[in-house]
Amino acid sequence: MKFFINEPQNVVNEAIEGILTDPKLTKLDNFPEVRVVLRKEIDANKVSVISGGGSGHEPAHAGFVGEGMLTAAVCGDIFASPSVDAVLSAIVATTGDQGCLLVIKNYTGDRLNFGLAAEQAREMGYKVETVIVGDDIALGEDVEQRGLAGTLFVHKVAGYLAEAGKDLEEVAAMAQKVASQTCSIGLSLEEGKKFEHPEASRLEDSEAELGLGIHGEPGVEKISIQNADVLVEKMLKKLTQFLPHEEQEYALLLNNLGSVTPLEMSILLNGISKSELAKNVKLLVGPAQLMTSLNMNGVSISVLQLDDEITEALTAKAQPAAWMIRTYAEKSSVESPELPKTLPYKASSNSEVSKAINAITMMLIESKDELNAIDEKVGDGDAGSTFATGAKKLQEVLDKLPLADYSELLITIGRILARETGGSSGVLLSILFTRAGNAYKESQHLGKSLLEGLNKMKEFGGAEEGQRTMIDALQPAFEALAEDKSITEAARAARKGADKTKEITQTKFGRSSYLSENSLEGIPDPGAEAAARVFEELA
Amino acid sequence: MKFFINEPQNVVNEAIEGILTDPKLTKLDNFPEVRVVLRKEIDANKVSVISGGGSGHEPAHAGFVGEGMLTAAVCGDIFASPSVDAVLSAIVATTGDQGCLLVIKNYTGDRLNFGLAAEQAREMGYKVETVIVGDDIALGEDVEQRGLAGTLFVHKVAGYLAEAGKDLEEVAAMAQKVASQTCSIGLSLEEGKKFEHPEASRLEDSEAELGLGIHGEPGVEKISIQNADVLVEKMLKKLTQFLPHEEQEYALLLNNLGSVTPLEMSILLNGISKSELAKNVKLLVGPAQLMTSLNMNGVSISVLQLDDEITEALTAKAQPAAWMIRTYAEKSSVESPELPKTLPYKASSNSEVSKAINAITMMLIESKDELNAIDEKVGDGDAGSTFATGAKKLQEVLDKLPLADYSELLITIGRILARETGGSSGVLLSILFTRAGNAYKESQHLGKSLLEGLNKMKEFGGAEEGQRTMIDALQPAFEALAEDKSITEAARAARKGADKTKEITQTKFGRSSYLSENSLEGIPDPGAEAAARVFEELA
Repeated sequence: MKFFINEPQNVVNEAIEGILTDPKLTKLDNFPEVRVVLRKEIDANKVSVISGGGSGHEPAHAGFVGEGMLTAAVCGDIFASPSVDAVLSAIVATTGDQGCLLVIKNYTGDRLNFGLAAEQAREMGYKVETVIVGDDIALGEDVEQRGLAGTLFVHKVAGYLAEAGKDLEEVAAMAQKVASQTCSIGLSLEEGKKFEHPEASRLEDSEAELGLGIHGEPGVEKISIQNADVLVEKMLKKLTQFLPHEEQEYALLLNNLGSVTPLEMSILLNGISKSELAKNVKLLVGPAQLMTSLNMNGVSISVLQLDDEITEALTAKAQPAAWMIRTYAEKSSVESPELPKTLPYKASSNSEVSKAINAITMMLIESKDELNAIDEKVGDGDAGSTFATGAKKLQEVLDKLPLADYSELLITIGRILARETGGSSGVLLSILFTRAGNAYKESQHLGKSLLEGLNKMKEFGGAEEGQRTMIDALQPAFEALAEDKSITEAARAARKGADKTKEITQTKFGRSSYLSENSLEGIPDPGAEAAARVFEELA
Repeated sequence: MKFFINEPQNVVNEAIEGILTDPKLTKLDNFPEVRVVLRKEIDANKVSVISGGGSGHEPAHAGFVGEGMLTAAVCGDIFASPSVDAVLSAIVATTGDQGCLLVIKNYTGDRLNFGLAAEQAREMGYKVETVIVGDDIALGEDVEQRGLAGTLFVHKVAGYLAEAGKDLEEVAAMAQKVASQTCSIGLSLEEGKKFEHPEASRLEDSEAELGLGIHGEPGVEKISIQNADVLVEKMLKKLTQFLPHEEQEYALLLNNLGSVTPLEMSILLNGISKSELAKNVKLLVGPAQLMTSLNMNGVSISVLQLDDEITEALTAKAQPAAWMIRTYAEKSSVESPELPKTLPYKASSNSEVSKAINAITMMLIESKDELNAIDEKVGDGDAGSTFATGAKKLQEVLDKLPLADYSELLITIGRILARETGGSSGVLLSILFTRAGNAYKESQHLGKSLLEGLNKMKEFGGAEEGQRTMIDALQPAFEALAEDKSITEAARAARKGADKTKEITQTKFGRSSYLSENSLEGIPDPGAEAAARVFEELA
């Protein structure tokens, strides 16, 4: 396991320093002895909302300091409660006449240190209320329930009410109500690894843990790893046991406990969307890293019963970017547009064009083995087959082509090549023909249109003349045609260009780029060779 | 490596389905053949901004669809470009008279498929512009530069201008300008692991990779792992080579490529804050998962030269929660409040109280070994030492105590116990005495105040009577005093309570909770025993 850290003992201090590049936040200057992150602008006429606890749970807690949420966060060492003095400092630094609310997660250390600080602050004359959040339902209802990510609901609601100028009694009562209406459960595939001496996992490859806290303690049960949907089902089954029987509306918080990818988080969200519970979910927080446990490969789900007041508080704007809430609803889809068919134009006839296409495609089909043989020496040996496949398809639909209209014809050839010719050469040629067809509408000049098509192909393909591609034959030939020279002159130019590729022994394009100079010398690029033959056939 | 997935071949589809629980988003109904995520409400009078590419980069690209950013995202398989038809469907489904801009990351597949779709859409009569973003500077300036997370700057600026009703020409020109003014570099400690057949790392434990793309391709150089600050320095040194010599203001985007913890991301941000470059950074995007490479243990840094127009576009409100921008500034701190001293009150005398404290503390010091011996059988063997330490400190400061004022005295004892007595018992007793001191101010009744203190201690400590703690002695004794019974009666009650703990063989508190019933039987709780002795001494 490798980490982006400096000295392990400095991780908390340095992480807080990073957060402090937010000009809306500041710290108490006896940092790091005391680690208090607080808002730079504090309204002394509003209730102060303070939380905190061990570190290693980022963005909780300092990441939720800001207008509309926490007034200050008190940060302990990794997984260790901050000291009484640190909590007391946060209270004294942020609390005015309206008093403060301490939001405490239900862990012994936090309870004791925040509890004593509250009592000491009262002695100093501050109005202090506390709410202890125990949202974890893993251990059942009869025992001490731990504080998990559901605590963030309390931060948000209390922060909103404080911002709105409510008094301490009301803020504390609502915080208590939210705490009592929140249930959470965690599930992990792998424990978080400590930065110093990361331990081997206590879990087998086939095992996961259900019902775990955020401090590395083992889960209540080991379960076997299953599909994401099954794991979600297990979590929700546990959770719903603790929800009221009557139908309720819920906010759901999907928390990444550390190292789960956004892609997996979305898959889990999709799993949740298949549940009965989802029908009653109206708001979604996350999926995101909200209250992590170092880099745990795990997630937690929290649900909170909603009412109008709580909904208003949860959805009100808040400064901290880490608070991500949106409405949650049934999925939808809209009709997909009909795309043009491969042959969108009416067939029309032109015997000369028909003869030319016939001749070129015959030639390409007959050259298949020869071009493959050249490509075997310098590429993956399928150049001949690729051209032959496209050519065959063109022959098949010859009498359905709009032969009398160059623009329509070029665009149609572009379509056929894109759908029937594999690999990037099909797409490249398709770009060339489609652009040429579009250009012909305006210029009515075949040579100029083809040259414009080639330029578009170069733009998206990235190759230039002289890099051992079909461009080396096409470019001089199209230039000749653009200058109204004869097809014979164009063919001569194409041949000259194709032959020149025998001397180009370095390239960045295609398989040839992996070959040594020796192995390329004297062998033409098969694409350029094919292009030259096409022009020779036409001439 | 364990993952939260169902079938590996369904990860992209299911992840998109999860995103679609956002009622502001929808998909084309030929999903998953074509994977287009688009806004539900599309203003046909505004330029459509479309991006996309391979999946495995979440939240890019679908996570940035929403008002003020992308109109639609086209999602390919993991690390694979979406088809031409998928891109064309997105264009046709979202584009009105104002046309659309395709933001394309500079990878061959994306360039070709988006490029051809653009050309096909033009043929259908749509106005289409494209911008190819190659912000990666790892390979130098002369070669093809890959598109990395800096592309998100282009999404945001183009999305803002489109929302503001600018025409396609202007949107495309600004997108091109932003693309050309953006530089990015990536660094990884471990590659992203594929969901199916995750391969062993190509990196040794001591190695990192500098200058890498987002599709698992090796970095330009292998470097040795070093402190986070050193790694940041290396990245910035590369980056700054490509920045203008004149002083400029920048937006910096700090991207988590997958599995880096928020804590480490903040440490890296702190590393950046120490650089010369940081002086010119005015806006910060992230640190967050913005454009990931599956679960890569790596980060990328992107910088964009700012001007007023770009700043306005970047900071304007946008729907997607994944877009997190804030101002960046020097860190600050504020003065920490002065906390009350351990002995905040003036000394006062009361010979009776002095005598009592003296007797109790002497007794506790003398009982040290005996209480330790009891604790050795049922706990960690230091109960006697803990009490003796607190007692010694009390003796030392006896003549400095406010002995004539019960409230001040209780609060002061609380302070001393919190600072001088280690472990949770010090904090618990401190809560008791502090609360009792606060309560005495109002009730002027010692017994009632102590009982109130005990209740506060129980609230935060979590233990109740009958759970083999000091509460078993304190509770009956304080109750007796609260009912104005004599100290002798209180002592008798305390003794009875302490003796009862010999029969309590199950507990959830302290070390004793790990012991078998047999090993607890007949032995009192050392805390309760100490409390009983204190009362007996007083009596």
